[in-house]
Amino acid sequence: MVFITRKEHFNAAHRLFREDFNDAKNLEVFGKCSNPNWHGHNYDLFVTVKGELDPLTGFVINLKDLSRIINHSIIEKMDHKNINLEVDFMKGKLASTENIAVAIFHELENHINTNKVQLHCVKLYETENNFVEYYGI
Amino acid sequence: MVFITRKEHFNAAHRLFREDFNDAKNLEVFGKCSNPNWHGHNYDLFVTVKGELDPLTGFVINLKDLSRIINHSIIEKMDHKNINLEVDFMKGKLASTENIAVAIFHELENHINTNKVQLHCVKLYETENNFVEYYGI
Amino acid sequence: MVFITRKEHFNAAHRLFREDFNDAKNLEVFGKCSNPNWHGHNYDLFVTVKGELDPLTGFVINLKDLSRIINHSIIEKMDHKNINLEVDFMKGKLASTENIAVAIFHELENHINTNKVQLHCVKLYETENNFVEYYGI
Amino acid sequence: MVFITRKEHFNAAHRLFREDFNDAKNLEVFGKCSNPNWHGHNYDLFVTVKGELDPLTGFVINLKDLSRIINHSIIEKMDHKNINLEVDFMKGKLASTENIAVAIFHELENHINTNKVQLHCVKLYETENNFVEYYGI
Amino acid sequence: MVFITRKEHFNAAHRLFREDFNDAKNLEVFGKCSNPNWHGHNYDLFVTVKGELDPLTGFVINLKDLSRIINHSIIEKMDHKNINLEVDFMKGKLASTENIAVAIFHELENHINTNKVQLHCVKLYETENNFVEYYGI
Amino acid sequence: MVFITRKEHFNAAHRLFREDFNDAKNLEVFGKCSNPNWHGHNYDLFVTVKGELDPLTGFVINLKDLSRIINHSIIEKMDHKNINLEVDFMKGKLASTENIAVAIFHELENHINTNKVQLHCVKLYETENNFVEYYGI
Repeated sequence: MVFITRKEHFNAAHRLFREDFNDAKNLEVFGKCSNPNWHGHNYDLFVTVKGELDPLTGFVINLKDLSRIINHSIIEKMDHKNINLEVDFMKGKLASTENIAVAIFHELENHINTNKVQLHCVKLYETENNFVEYYGI
Repeated sequence: MVFITRKEHFNAAHRLFREDFNDAKNLEVFGKCSNPNWHGHNYDLFVTVKGELDPLTGFVINLKDLSRIINHSIIEKMDHKNINLEVDFMKGKLASTENIAVAIFHELENHINTNKVQLHCVKLYETENNFVEYYGI
Repeated sequence: MVFITRKEHFNAAHRLFREDFNDAKNLEVFGKCSNPNWHGHNYDLFVTVKGELDPLTGFVINLKDLSRIINHSIIEKMDHKNINLEVDFMKGKLASTENIAVAIFHELENHINTNKVQLHCVKLYETENNFVEYYGI
Repeated sequence: MVFITRKEHFNAAHRLFREDFNDAKNLEVFGKCSNPNWHGHNYDLFVTVKGELDPLTGFVINLKDLSRIINHSIIEKMDHKNINLEVDFMKGKLASTENIAVAIFHELENHINTNKVQLHCVKLYETENNFVEYYGI
Repeated sequence: MVFITRKEHFNAAHRLFREDFNDAKNLEVFGKCSNPNWHGHNYDLFVTVKGELDPLTGFVINLKDLSRIINHSIIEKMDHKNINLEVDFMKGKLASTENIAVAIFHELENHINTNKVQLHCVKLYETENNFVEYYGI
Repeated sequence: MVFITRKEHFNAAHRLFREDFNDAKNLEVFGKCSNPNWHGHNYDLFVTVKGELDPLTGFVINLKDLSRIINHSIIEKMDHKNINLEVDFMKGKLASTENIAVAIFHELENHINTNKVQLHCVKLYETENNFVEYYGI
């Protein structure tokens, strides 16, 4: 079993807030991340896939294919977008790094998993000081 | 003459667009950076100050003072903000990295320059692949 | 189960040595790290917490709280200090990266663990080429 | 149980291809990585060892010893070399990052494993966007 | 006058040697970089352009245009190539980082320079420990 | 004229203080950097040399020679040392990053400057957020 990771990148706007909270309550819980005028981040996304080595190619998965899947399913939908307003798979969810990482995992798994390889982990950096990992369990 | 640099950081939302352009024209000129729903970045800001060494302290400038000036004049106004809507010194300006760097330079110079030290350069990273430098001339 | 990590930083002096070794023996075992006049490092500390997502906030743990705990329990005690002489929870221990990471884990766990979240890992970089991970088991 | 990691580095040339494929087929499967005139990378190698702490030293393993083993067994054989043509333990294998990481693991384990410590993971970066991890199982 | 920099990347093979030296002499002068079987690097290329800000766009130069020029003139010719054998503008030149940086500068300047903007600097990293800067003078 | 830079590294202890200040005054001026029990850093040192390209080698300077000079003159004297107590060329000087960078420049220039090449700049990182540049003038 070998693990291979591909790093991709997107820049996006978001805010942390609940519609059932007023502004004061949102500020108390989410701090400056609740700014109603949005803020944003350079997100780094690490997608790890595990599997046996294909003896024909020496690959777990062809990184060109993995990169294409991530770009088609995630990056094109999130890059230079507003995560709260424009990303279909985040509709109705709080745009926390945790929720984004979980949602990306579930977007990717059907496109990656076969009887040979499996999505292992989604790791999402919001800043260089904060990141989230989700293993699907 | 010695040069000392302090790195600070802010996360913000912005968009590139002209009010006198329609959406199609903004998209043509500014690409996905013109998204009306905003996007954002983790900005890294490098402020370089030059001067003679103070023989008493061995410093060009006390980095605590420099950091305090940058935080008070720039970071508190930009961090977790919308650059187009909320930053006083960017009012009426296109929020390009170039314009932001020039504006930050002019915000800082009066707070830093004395007869001993001078603001030398503002270097602003929008992403790890793009940055702007402005020397005030 | 989601994992979230916060990076903090401290700069400190230390040396590796045993009082029951003479200088020659310390030099043989610990090399230049045994220098009696101390040396130091910029330590990067990664603290990983795991738990279920709080449906109200979308958080495993509020990073402001996590950062406050790490700063209060660790950074204020270690930053710009001598690890051998001044850090209470390192008293009587060899100041190896391994021992520091284990001690930080045990300092943090009582302040972090609840019935919902658990300290998962402390990862400590001594230099960009050396780091230690401890999972509490 | 504590985990300690040492980072080492080598620069090498390689190509991805199968002798039983013609050039067109190699290009189809391996893309530009199949260039018959070679290309190359700055490889970053992270070797993680796990074990109990030695109470005498506070170490899992003396990093000088670990670094010496990695340099003797791997770096001297791979740095500034052609992986396909010159590295004995890659003879007859496709020079994919996966195969290199697995081969490095098996080269190292006999030199590292004792009744006290065990090679835990080899992590190999081909570029900053691609890396492989192998745990020996 | 504002300076803007775009970072691009290529992976390539090369060797340092002179045809009028024998192998022993090449080894003496160029060390392991003279390996006849090639080695390679992940090269990071920083291209800095200077000019006045265009009041219509707030740009020195549209980074999409700059990136396109660099990719068309340099990256497509160098990425996953052998610098000594396959790069037209390096024919007959020693493939030192210095010579590569100078050649890239001269390849780019005609495509970038206008009466408004000017290529200022090419900075080329061969490894994270070595880089070259050339300003065209 | 081409500029080439070599990065080297040392880990050291230091403190900022004046003997003619008492502890309270040192704390007021130098903050926690005045801790009498020392603290330390991982210093990154960038040495830039400028000159014409040698047509025989394509080099400004052979990086092996440059690295050897830096290691012999600086790294062996500073790595795992106490800058205040043990570094001959810092005797009697405040151990500020500025003073260290200036002193390193003057240590190196005689070993590097010839009629062909010249030491151009010493850039010293104390942390990833603070660095000093000195050009010898």
